[in-house]
Amino acid sequence: MVQQERAIRTRRVILEAAAATFDEHGYESTTIAEILERAEVTKGALYFHFSSKGDLARGVLAAAVTTGGVRPHALKLQELADAMLLLAFRLPREPMLSAALRMAVDPRTRRRFGTAWPEWAEVMADLLREAKARGEVLAHTDEEEVGRMIVSAWTGVRVVTEGLPGAYDLPGEIARLLRLLLAAVATPAVLPRLEISAARAARLYADTPTGRAEAAGSVPCGITA
Amino acid sequence: MVQQERAIRTRRVILEAAAATFDEHGYESTTIAEILERAEVTKGALYFHFSSKGDLARGVLAAAVTTGGVRPHALKLQELADAMLLLAFRLPREPMLSAALRMAVDPRTRRRFGTAWPEWAEVMADLLREAKARGEVLAHTDEEEVGRMIVSAWTGVRVVTEGLPGAYDLPGEIARLLRLLLAAVATPAVLPRLEISAARAARLYADTPTGRAEAAGSVPCGITA
Repeated sequence: MVQQERAIRTRRVILEAAAATFDEHGYESTTIAEILERAEVTKGALYFHFSSKGDLARGVLAAAVTTGGVRPHALKLQELADAMLLLAFRLPREPMLSAALRMAVDPRTRRRFGTAWPEWAEVMADLLREAKARGEVLAHTDEEEVGRMIVSAWTGVRVVTEGLPGAYDLPGEIARLLRLLLAAVATPAVLPRLEISAARAARLYADTPTGRAEAAGSVPCGITA
Repeated sequence: MVQQERAIRTRRVILEAAAATFDEHGYESTTIAEILERAEVTKGALYFHFSSKGDLARGVLAAAVTTGGVRPHALKLQELADAMLLLAFRLPREPMLSAALRMAVDPRTRRRFGTAWPEWAEVMADLLREAKARGEVLAHTDEEEVGRMIVSAWTGVRVVTEGLPGAYDLPGEIARLLRLLLAAVATPAVLPRLEISAARAARLYADTPTGRAEAAGSVPCGITA
């Protein structure tokens, strides 16, 4: 059992080292040697868990769709906003997320490994369907379409924010985006009840295991802060 | 004079060959030899116009901000929508535009050459300011912020559309995005007067010089269809 826990931990350490290296240099330029050096594990340990660099890339992508930290709320649209706000707060802190996005944006890695976008769009569409069933969403809203637009626009804000001069914080920009998009989707009674702000993103994050560990000055094993 | 025209034409041919190659293989992987082969010009001709591969990349980026084809309209918000719709229709047809976007999205080329995003965001903000002065836009709208969001979300739709399974046409997706964003920005009297559709994008394009040449079955010299 202890041995199994150690194996899970080692796998996670390797995956995070791979993510951090992909994120810095891009998948193509990364070598296995760099990942070994960063993870501080032996070649044998790495190949025990992953058969190739491509296998590591697939592992990083699989870890990138997560709504962890989003808590049940009376309004489904608030849960939707929370998922997107939390992702914005976590992405600059977690190489696993930014590496996955970088690989999705790069045409070469995208062609080879696919992306997490279809899954994310489905998560959004499901929340919109639940929200509509509760009367939170305008009747003419197409949930699939709006779900796809939220994921697309979120991605664009992340990509463009990096490329603009001036310091735009991602959670602040994502909050601005969501306020615009949800104004076109929420019913007039629901809209003013939504809290969409960078401050909420920070509060949600502080309540996740990683956030609590960060606040306590330590980082739980195997989770990159 | 004839000689000067030929020089301008040659420069354009080389720039478009560079754009098409950057677009296909990425800036880093492209060699000058490939550009020469595609442009069917001599090395001497290329270096007469451009000092390096980097110089070609800068030329491509400089050609990527254009509101050509947008005609004056009674509603400034329609002009804004038209600029974004037309860009969506042109981008899959013009390697100059898609290469510029690909270079902006790639962190390495972005760091080296910058992007056209700040200029595009400024074009959008200017149109929003004019629209607000005419009472087309809700009073609480922040023109800089919404301009930035339009450019960001547009970029995201382009990037994600390429990565999603299924055939989403860019003008159609951009029309869906603009309908959402402008619903949060336009005054109730103006919103129903806006025409935001892929069909409008096609009509606007058909009225540009490139579009007219395409319809007539020929392509004007130096313009990639």
